[in-house]
Amino acid sequence: MIPFRSPERPEHGGRLEAAARKWGIPRDQWLDLSTGINPVPYPIPEIPLEVWQRLPEPDDGLEEIIRHWAGAPADAVCLPVAGSQQAIMALPAVRKRVHGLGRVAVPIPGYREHGHAWQRAGFEVVGISAEQALADDLDWLASVDVMVWVNPNNPTGQVLMPERLLAWRERLERHGGWLVVDEAFIDGLPDHTLDPWAGSANLLILRSLGKFFGLAGIRAGAVLLERGLAKQFNHELGPWPVSGPTRYLMKRVLEDETWQAGALAKQQEASMRLSALLEQHGLGSLSGTLLFQTVQHSKAAEIADRLARCGILVRCFDAPQALRFGLPADEASWQRLADALSGIYICH
Amino acid sequence: MIPFRSPERPEHGGRLEAAARKWGIPRDQWLDLSTGINPVPYPIPEIPLEVWQRLPEPDDGLEEIIRHWAGAPADAVCLPVAGSQQAIMALPAVRKRVHGLGRVAVPIPGYREHGHAWQRAGFEVVGISAEQALADDLDWLASVDVMVWVNPNNPTGQVLMPERLLAWRERLERHGGWLVVDEAFIDGLPDHTLDPWAGSANLLILRSLGKFFGLAGIRAGAVLLERGLAKQFNHELGPWPVSGPTRYLMKRVLEDETWQAGALAKQQEASMRLSALLEQHGLGSLSGTLLFQTVQHSKAAEIADRLARCGILVRCFDAPQALRFGLPADEASWQRLADALSGIYICH
Repeated sequence: MIPFRSPERPEHGGRLEAAARKWGIPRDQWLDLSTGINPVPYPIPEIPLEVWQRLPEPDDGLEEIIRHWAGAPADAVCLPVAGSQQAIMALPAVRKRVHGLGRVAVPIPGYREHGHAWQRAGFEVVGISAEQALADDLDWLASVDVMVWVNPNNPTGQVLMPERLLAWRERLERHGGWLVVDEAFIDGLPDHTLDPWAGSANLLILRSLGKFFGLAGIRAGAVLLERGLAKQFNHELGPWPVSGPTRYLMKRVLEDETWQAGALAKQQEASMRLSALLEQHGLGSLSGTLLFQTVQHSKAAEIADRLARCGILVRCFDAPQALRFGLPADEASWQRLADALSGIYICH
Repeated sequence: MIPFRSPERPEHGGRLEAAARKWGIPRDQWLDLSTGINPVPYPIPEIPLEVWQRLPEPDDGLEEIIRHWAGAPADAVCLPVAGSQQAIMALPAVRKRVHGLGRVAVPIPGYREHGHAWQRAGFEVVGISAEQALADDLDWLASVDVMVWVNPNNPTGQVLMPERLLAWRERLERHGGWLVVDEAFIDGLPDHTLDPWAGSANLLILRSLGKFFGLAGIRAGAVLLERGLAKQFNHELGPWPVSGPTRYLMKRVLEDETWQAGALAKQQEASMRLSALLEQHGLGSLSGTLLFQTVQHSKAAEIADRLARCGILVRCFDAPQALRFGLPADEASWQRLADALSGIYICH
């Protein structure tokens, strides 16, 4: 296991105001590829006045709609949350209340808010490498109270098969351990989601809506879990954790299967185009998901800086050194990215 | 001091779905007076696509707009939150992290989420009566680590003057105690708000936007506090605590001083009309704020049930027995309330 050290606050993409200040380029002139968010958002429908006006109500049918969309069983509880971040921050409090403190394993590299939240709450956090995640011997799980996996992982794109994760869950359950699976980037991988097993003992699945539907601003996600834990989780969230307009939009987008099918096809095409473009420009060591491609490169920071000087914002990681590219929205953006990459001499 | 016992989850108004089931009246046929929310909401403007699409950014100018609106000094930090509820739930965690557990005093009767949140986090919670709040001797504050006051109080309408609250703050500061003032219903009472003292040591002020602006669905509020505590508070909230559309609307409504002046005048008129109507129908022992009137009555539950049978939902309290009425939205609603009250024989 790898030591885990969280910064005071983990960094994130999408900070255009900060980029505009740092590189002296006005906000509206940036091509922002720093997040893994579908750049073609679900069109915002008219939202009834009542939705803005009234307190959100928990019994508005949203939970059933989430269940149907996720393909979760009838006995799973499907709680809406204000983005998976809200769930990430509530999880340690729920665990502590039910079982007390303990040891939590998170993937390294991986989405850093997980380890940060557990560490802040007083848990011991250890890192699990990509290799260890693939080990056949599961004995290492005996010393873990909560195993957090991000599937596919962000930014590495590593995907584990459900069989492996279910074996982890079973091994963890023996000593009251939890398996938390963050499926923020699972869209387009129907054979990899654990949602059909939602509601199993000690399994907590986080879904995000902002990314696939291109609506990161509304803060929309869901937690799928067993009834007993759901009650604790609900208490932790308190009343009205999700705004009325967000609940309304969640219902609309989750029920619109036609839009979903079209968006998936477009994202699949764009994803292949992005990896081809990056390879063509010498950024070949690629992994990723539907919504981003990650390139390991020893000059990652330098390339990110060169792109930023052209007004293109990408996400830069330092351990290991890597760049993460989101999908361009339109032909002009594709061309702008291609031109910028052509202008940078990249050593292989 | 009075013992404080919180139910598993405090109850709230605005639960129309539940009322529709309980009384067998379709949702759209109710006159909902169960919340203290301006029934004439701020008109929702067009919201730019980018706001829905992108992650919310903290450096969008909202904090300065809140400061200007609240009249808070330059050295106060003005943090947007997803409704004052989010702040109420974060406060105990911040206090615990900085000072450890201790004793918290809350008004009884008063908005129950405060005591609930502190008790859930492990603090000892005691109740302060309306009489004790008016005591000239402040020695009782020596044994209090956090004093929470709701000004004006909900549902009693009791208002304390800034001088008294500032004396509390000073007394509490001597032993590292905090004064938390929940100003959810302070609109229309410019001489009573503590906002000009925001940023003082150990003072935390909660503001709500949903009520005065009639937009409870968007979950909008603010916390005004000193810089050191604000840093801790920010960590507790994590990234993106408030959605993009909510941040956008907060900026718009807080800058629209013309609308605010008109809304205030309308609410003042409606508030007087409501108390006159209730008195006229034998519900005379009134207290309240701009946005609700509370009536103490030994038959409160029975009257609430009679009103509900007419499809009028009010909030009913049991200790002491009281009814809380929000403002009707339009002439038809006023008439409907008047008719229903006429049909109920109320013993004086």
